[in-house]
Amino acid sequence: MIHVAILGFGVVGSGVAEVIAMNEKQLERHLGIPIQVKKILDVRDFPDSPFASLFTKDADDIFEDSEITVVAETIGGATIAYELTKRALSKGKSVVTSNKELVAKHGVELMQLASKNHCIYLFEASVGGGIPIIRPLHRCLAANRISKVAGIVNGTTNYILTQMTESGEDFNSALAAAQMKGYAEKNPSADIDGTDARRKISILASIVLNGAYVDSDLIYSEGIAQVTQQDISYARYMDGKIKLLAIFLHPEDGQNSAIVAPHIVSTDEPLSVANGVFNAISVRGNALGDAMFYGQGAGKLATASAVVGDILDAALHKDRAAHITTWFYADEPVLAPHKKSKVKALLRVSVDTKDSEINVAVRGGFSDRIDGVVPDEAAYLIGVDGTLTEEMLDKAIRMIPGFISRIRIY
Amino acid sequence: MIHVAILGFGVVGSGVAEVIAMNEKQLERHLGIPIQVKKILDVRDFPDSPFASLFTKDADDIFEDSEITVVAETIGGATIAYELTKRALSKGKSVVTSNKELVAKHGVELMQLASKNHCIYLFEASVGGGIPIIRPLHRCLAANRISKVAGIVNGTTNYILTQMTESGEDFNSALAAAQMKGYAEKNPSADIDGTDARRKISILASIVLNGAYVDSDLIYSEGIAQVTQQDISYARYMDGKIKLLAIFLHPEDGQNSAIVAPHIVSTDEPLSVANGVFNAISVRGNALGDAMFYGQGAGKLATASAVVGDILDAALHKDRAAHITTWFYADEPVLAPHKKSKVKALLRVSVDTKDSEINVAVRGGFSDRIDGVVPDEAAYLIGVDGTLTEEMLDKAIRMIPGFISRIRIY
Repeated sequence: MIHVAILGFGVVGSGVAEVIAMNEKQLERHLGIPIQVKKILDVRDFPDSPFASLFTKDADDIFEDSEITVVAETIGGATIAYELTKRALSKGKSVVTSNKELVAKHGVELMQLASKNHCIYLFEASVGGGIPIIRPLHRCLAANRISKVAGIVNGTTNYILTQMTESGEDFNSALAAAQMKGYAEKNPSADIDGTDARRKISILASIVLNGAYVDSDLIYSEGIAQVTQQDISYARYMDGKIKLLAIFLHPEDGQNSAIVAPHIVSTDEPLSVANGVFNAISVRGNALGDAMFYGQGAGKLATASAVVGDILDAALHKDRAAHITTWFYADEPVLAPHKKSKVKALLRVSVDTKDSEINVAVRGGFSDRIDGVVPDEAAYLIGVDGTLTEEMLDKAIRMIPGFISRIRIY
Repeated sequence: MIHVAILGFGVVGSGVAEVIAMNEKQLERHLGIPIQVKKILDVRDFPDSPFASLFTKDADDIFEDSEITVVAETIGGATIAYELTKRALSKGKSVVTSNKELVAKHGVELMQLASKNHCIYLFEASVGGGIPIIRPLHRCLAANRISKVAGIVNGTTNYILTQMTESGEDFNSALAAAQMKGYAEKNPSADIDGTDARRKISILASIVLNGAYVDSDLIYSEGIAQVTQQDISYARYMDGKIKLLAIFLHPEDGQNSAIVAPHIVSTDEPLSVANGVFNAISVRGNALGDAMFYGQGAGKLATASAVVGDILDAALHKDRAAHITTWFYADEPVLAPHKKSKVKALLRVSVDTKDSEINVAVRGGFSDRIDGVVPDEAAYLIGVDGTLTEEMLDKAIRMIPGFISRIRIY
C-alpha cells in the first residue's frame, strides 16, 4: 500500500482526494499495489466531507508517520507551503505540487533538498494544469535541443480575451463575467497582470536550460488590462486573435529571452485553437520541429489528475533522485535584457500622423501603412517587422506624435 | 559510456545516428554519461556516410557485443525486424523502435520477452512520429480513466486530404503530388487504405486498456481513395474538413469500439489544426477532460528524436522491466463488433429521392434535409444523428434508391 498525505484541502487538494478515490482501480493497476490517502492537513474543518476521518491540523501527524512516503502540497503561495515542503523533503518524503509560485521562487532550494534527502520534488501540475508538459519537455523531448517554448498558460486571461473577442465585451465586463463563473479570483491581479504566466514560463525555461534557474522576476511582462476592442479588431483584420503569450527563446546563436505579453496570434498558428480556459503550449526542437500540447490549464480534476500522475511517479521512483534535473543558480545571467529583444508589432497612430514623421522616427523596420481597418476610427496601422529591438521601438514610438497604441505580433 | 546499435540505416535509422551526433552534449547532460552509436547493421554499403566505420552486415557483431545495451530497430516490417528484435531482447538488450507494424503485430510477445529478460521494449516513435504520445498516455495520464483516443495519425493521407481541400485537386493528383514530395511511398496502399492508422490506434488502444492487446486486424477501416471534392464541399458547408480519423472509444458503460475512416471534423475541434503532414491526437480522461498532442507525425529527424528519447529512457532504466505495462492477450474480446457502433454521418442522395423513401428506410435517426450545398449538383444531404448503429445505417442506405454516398461526422 502506498500512503499519501495531502497538504491543503482547497480546490486542487480536494480534487486530488477525489481522483484517487474515483480511479482507485486504475491507479492500483498502474502501481501494482493499492494507493490511499492516509491524512489531510487543513486548518479548517470538513465534517461533511467523505474524507472527514482523514483530517488533521497537526503537520507532525504527517511528517512523523513513516508509512507516508508521498505528500501532495496543494496549499499554494510561498509561505506555509514553503515551510511544509521543506519539512517533508527533509524527512525524505517526496513532494508533488501544483504550486507554480513556490516552484518558480524556491525551486532550486527545494530540488536540491530533495536530492540531498533521496526523495523527489515533482510539479507537473504547476504549468498547464492537467496537460502533460513538464515531463514531456524533460523526458520525451530529451533528444532535442529546444529553441522555443511559447504558450497560452493562463486560463483566466484566455477566458477574458476569448469573451472580449466573441461577444465584443470590454475588459472590465469580461473580467466580471469570468469572476461570476469562478474562472477569475476576487483579486485577479496575479492572472491579469501576467505574474502567473511569468512564473509558468520561468519553470519551463529552467527545464529547457537543463536546470539553470530562470528567475520569473526578471521576465518582462505586460498584462491584458490594456487590451481594447480596437486591438481585437486589428487582430481580426490580420486573421488573428489576441492571446496572452508567455514565450521563452533559446536560440542556437544569440542570447535567451523571455516575455509575457498580449500578442496577435494568427488563426493559422496551432496555438490559436486554445479558447476559453484552455491552455496550449508549443515547443520547437531541433529534431522534432514544432509540437503542441493542448488541454485544460486549470480546473479541479484536471489539475488534480496531473498531481496524482506525479504521486504515481514519486511512488514508483522514490529511490531515484535524478528524475527532473535538479535546478541550480547559473554563474552567468541566463536571460538577455528585455530591451535587446527583437520585436514584431502593430502600431496604431492617428490619421494626422504624416508618413514623414514615421520615417524620421525610424529608418527601416517598419512595413507598409495599413488603412481603414476600423471604419469609424481616425487611425491607421503600421507594421513593425521584427528587425527592431524593443529599445529601438520604444524610442521610435516616442518620436511619433500621433502614436496611440501598440500590440505585439507572434 | 552508453553504447547503442542501430538496425537498419534507412530514413529513420540514419536520422537516429544524426540526432545522436547533433545533440551529443544535450544527451550527455541528460544521461550523466556520454552516449555513442557503436555499430550499425545494414546489408547495404554506405562508404560516404560519416558513420561509415560503424557498419556491419553481421548481426552477431551487435548481439555478441556486451557493451551494447540498447538497440534501435529501424528496419520496419514484421519479418527481419521481428527476428532481430527477438534476438536482441533474448540477449537482454533493450530495443526501441519506430516500427508500428511490428508492435501492432507482435507487441505482446516482444514485451513479454523483454520482461523475461529484464530489459525493455519501447516504441514512442511508432505513433505520432516525434510527438510524445505513448509515454504521456501511459505515464502522465495514469491518474485518469481514458474514455477516448481520436487522432489524425497518418501524415501521408492528411497531406493528400489537405491538398484536396486547399487546391481543389482530386485524389489521384494529390496522391501524385505527395509521392513527388516524398510524403507518400511508391506503393502507398498501407497509408491510403488506413492500414497504417489502424496499427497506430491499436497500439494506443492497447495502452489505454492497460496492456490488453487490441489486434489491429479486427479494427474496421476505410481509406481515403473514395473521398471526393463533393465530400470536401459538404464538409466545408458544415464548417469542417475531411480528415482520416483513427478512433478508439472506451466508454464507462458499454463496449469498446475502434474505427479508421474519413470523417468531417469541425473547424472548432482542436484536431482540425493538423494540416499537411502534421498529426494530432486527442485524449479524453475522466479527470483531465480533453487534451491534445500535435506535431510532425513523420519525417526523418522528428521520428528519430522520439527513438532517441526512448534510447535515453532505456539507458537510464535498463533494470526496470515495468516501464510500459507488458501487453497480454485478454480472455474476452476487447472490441465490440463494428456493426454495433453508433454512427454520425451525412448521406448524399439524388434530388429525385422522395422524403417518403427516406422515412420508409428508417424511422428516426435522420435529421433534416439540407438542400443546395453544391449548386450544380443534383443532390441533397441528410444528416444521421448518432442514434443509429452502423448496421442499421447500412440497412437504411440499401433501402434508399437515390443514395449516392456517405461520410462520417466526428
